[in-house]
Amino acid sequence: MEWAVILAGGSGTRFWPLSSPAHPKQLLPLVGSRSTAEETLDRLSGFIPLSRVIVVTGRDLAQPLSARLGLSADNLLIEPRPASTGPALVWATHEIQRRDKDAGIIAMHADWAVGDSAVFVRTAQAALDAARRHDRLITVGVVPSRPDTSYGYIVPGSPLDAGARAVGRFVEKPEAGAALDLMADGALWNSGLFAWTASRLLAEVLAHTPEISRFLDRLDQGDVTGFFAGLTAVSIDVGVLERSEKVAVVPGHFDWDDVGTWEALARVRPLDRSGNVTAGPVSLVDASDCIVWSDGIPIVVSGTRDLVVVSANNRILVISRAKALELKLVLEKLPSEVRELPG
Amino acid sequence: MEWAVILAGGSGTRFWPLSSPAHPKQLLPLVGSRSTAEETLDRLSGFIPLSRVIVVTGRDLAQPLSARLGLSADNLLIEPRPASTGPALVWATHEIQRRDKDAGIIAMHADWAVGDSAVFVRTAQAALDAARRHDRLITVGVVPSRPDTSYGYIVPGSPLDAGARAVGRFVEKPEAGAALDLMADGALWNSGLFAWTASRLLAEVLAHTPEISRFLDRLDQGDVTGFFAGLTAVSIDVGVLERSEKVAVVPGHFDWDDVGTWEALARVRPLDRSGNVTAGPVSLVDASDCIVWSDGIPIVVSGTRDLVVVSANNRILVISRAKALELKLVLEKLPSEVRELPG
Repeated sequence: MEWAVILAGGSGTRFWPLSSPAHPKQLLPLVGSRSTAEETLDRLSGFIPLSRVIVVTGRDLAQPLSARLGLSADNLLIEPRPASTGPALVWATHEIQRRDKDAGIIAMHADWAVGDSAVFVRTAQAALDAARRHDRLITVGVVPSRPDTSYGYIVPGSPLDAGARAVGRFVEKPEAGAALDLMADGALWNSGLFAWTASRLLAEVLAHTPEISRFLDRLDQGDVTGFFAGLTAVSIDVGVLERSEKVAVVPGHFDWDDVGTWEALARVRPLDRSGNVTAGPVSLVDASDCIVWSDGIPIVVSGTRDLVVVSANNRILVISRAKALELKLVLEKLPSEVRELPG
Repeated sequence: MEWAVILAGGSGTRFWPLSSPAHPKQLLPLVGSRSTAEETLDRLSGFIPLSRVIVVTGRDLAQPLSARLGLSADNLLIEPRPASTGPALVWATHEIQRRDKDAGIIAMHADWAVGDSAVFVRTAQAALDAARRHDRLITVGVVPSRPDTSYGYIVPGSPLDAGARAVGRFVEKPEAGAALDLMADGALWNSGLFAWTASRLLAEVLAHTPEISRFLDRLDQGDVTGFFAGLTAVSIDVGVLERSEKVAVVPGHFDWDDVGTWEALARVRPLDRSGNVTAGPVSLVDASDCIVWSDGIPIVVSGTRDLVVVSANNRILVISRAKALELKLVLEKLPSEVRELPG
């Protein structure tokens, strides 16, 4: 049967001061009126029933996520520590195989903005079909709309059939010039939407990923703590996909954004005629290309452009859009009593 | 004897959202750690006793002003309506003359930043001496430090003696080019620091200011409401000084600012090495030439320049310094529920 794994990890500083441990990014209405986690689950409805959805998350997010999404204990895998996407997806795949020996799995993140849910679901289904047809690990490559330097790229190789191609190579986040070249050459964004059979993923891990596979017996014994204690954190891309020959790419023709920075809101939310994005009680007077978010206090912005202004959690952030791309570096320079948000 | 009149009127929108009817500009610590009204009174101590200080204000400000400044009813004149500086100074002068027939008076505003209090007091004393010596209305002309276009100017005329000159002409707020020419020609800022004898001011009003003088008999009868109901609002400059021949100018060699806009804080408060002015819990990361004020909520400003950022009274203002010069026009465009501050 078909299963879905949803990754919902992360420390949540990218949308400071809005995101916080108590209010993680995945549960914020960043894209629409509902949270991205809720929209992710909605997108799967009619395709994969909730009983075959596994959400992998950390200790902080487990309670708020499961309350908001209506999850049961069977839906939840709670990581003892963050260890990138490799261990999370291997654990989830291992657990699904325990329940369903011949499972097919699609994997995704809980914080995406997706333009057309129907196309997304058709693509996920096509990726699952290709995973079984070719017995390969499938990565969905989203057709790029801009030479983004914050995404990894996939250069497709030779066609396997009408729906899937081999992988030419994976490219980590490129420089701006390289991103333009990649886009011109037909490279695709490595979205993180994956499909595989449980047996193929675990076989590839055994063949190529000793930093995880050496501790798989702990999972066999139900010792999740031991599994995470032993393994080395590694992404699924670096640890498995880039090392395996049994990979393929299926193109995705839907708008997709990982909503990784305040800047992303100007792509995924509606703009006013002056290019501004606002949420909450915001008044603009001669402002353009600004991103302004208030969780309650009225904000007035005037005579400015290209600013991000946020009021949330008893903090106010005013930052240029360019600087907001490096928000993490800015936060590191703040006194901890300012950076750390009130509970 | 010598008396002082302090004008403390105004609706208080210039420092929105910090100033409000409950927290008027004159009672805010805009310049130093104490309010300008307190500093104004401090500046007079040792020169004019509190019993000979008259504060003219409106109904809203009377209570907070008198509480903060320790005023008694004898110190306060409460205007029934705002009517510019002419009626306020005529009323105060009339009242002082009622108490002290030969009074000499200096008049000033409660919202000034003054650099050197000792020089200010010496100048005020010199102006009072000149007022008696020449039996003229004295305006103190501050030596300009920049071609400011928000101030009126005085072009001095021929010397009356070593300390005072006749007035060549008054110039209303000039254009930028004209301000440069005025400064080059030795014109002085019309500061609003005045000195006169009560008898001379009232004589000049009788001679030149029918819009006020026709209602002076109401004051004689103690009918303040009738005085204000009848008169036409007019400034002391336009209504009296510019019409009278009995005027003179005494130069003032002290730093003086009427602290009329957020921009003024960059002149009257200390700057950091990047040209920023801050008050309250403010963190700056790669910000320059910004004016940032918080009355409590921590503010982080990064990657920006030439911004005014204010958090106060449950409002947040983010505005370019250029636009902040026209804050009143911006406020007019706001919905009233945003513009009006919580009590």
